[in-house]
Amino acid sequence: MAKDTIHDAVKNALEKEGWSVTDEPMMVRTGGVALDMDLAVEKLMQAVKENERIIVEIKSFKGPSLIYEFHAALGQYINYRGALSDESIQLEIFLAVSAGTFRKFSRSEFYLRRMKENNVKLVVVNIIEEIIVEWIK
Amino acid sequence: MAKDTIHDAVKNALEKEGWSVTDEPMMVRTGGVALDMDLAVEKLMQAVKENERIIVEIKSFKGPSLIYEFHAALGQYINYRGALSDESIQLEIFLAVSAGTFRKFSRSEFYLRRMKENNVKLVVVNIIEEIIVEWIK
Repeated sequence: MAKDTIHDAVKNALEKEGWSVTDEPMMVRTGGVALDMDLAVEKLMQAVKENERIIVEIKSFKGPSLIYEFHAALGQYINYRGALSDESIQLEIFLAVSAGTFRKFSRSEFYLRRMKENNVKLVVVNIIEEIIVEWIK
Repeated sequence: MAKDTIHDAVKNALEKEGWSVTDEPMMVRTGGVALDMDLAVEKLMQAVKENERIIVEIKSFKGPSLIYEFHAALGQYINYRGALSDESIQLEIFLAVSAGTFRKFSRSEFYLRRMKENNVKLVVVNIIEEIIVEWIK
């Protein structure tokens, strides 16, 4: 798949907060398929003196149908999480979306309910300023 | 959305087994969105002398990327199930796929694992003969 239009802005925002990219993409092979997850990043956590490592899947939601893209992103997130579990890769996965997309989600309770119900973790990014607005776990 | 290419074949197969279409599509409004589910069908169950009613969402998987379409179909299925639950609509939902698509899924353990893990119910249809091959619950 081609890189998402907000890919570089998200990566820059993560790097500004001290995250380093370790894999771009991170390929996971499992059960007869190969999955390319957009980014794996890591950061030294001062409090515990350990590296934290996470996976970030980036979605711009720039297409004509917000709900159809949401179906696809939710399914992909759940499938990636399942693949990581199958391979005993203990990394949390975050869906990166723009602040504009998150505002759209917030206008309909449906989106918020589905993300909560399915334990979707989000990182919301201001794409213009390339800064992280919020982590939602 | 336009009707799926295998829509009519699935409908005919259901009707051959005694199911009657009650809604095409069935629209569910919930939490600020409107969802069009492909079919609601019902059938008199002789054993219990009651009508059983189910929802069937039809997917042809004719695009270039099986895995991307699978992400989208899984997310849509989970979102529809959540919407029905939010609205206290107690109908089971089935994903209708062709026998050819099901064979493709069966070649990679990944697909079977993800469907089982997420409790996806399937109805597998022979699209040429327009007959139901299998219900998988």
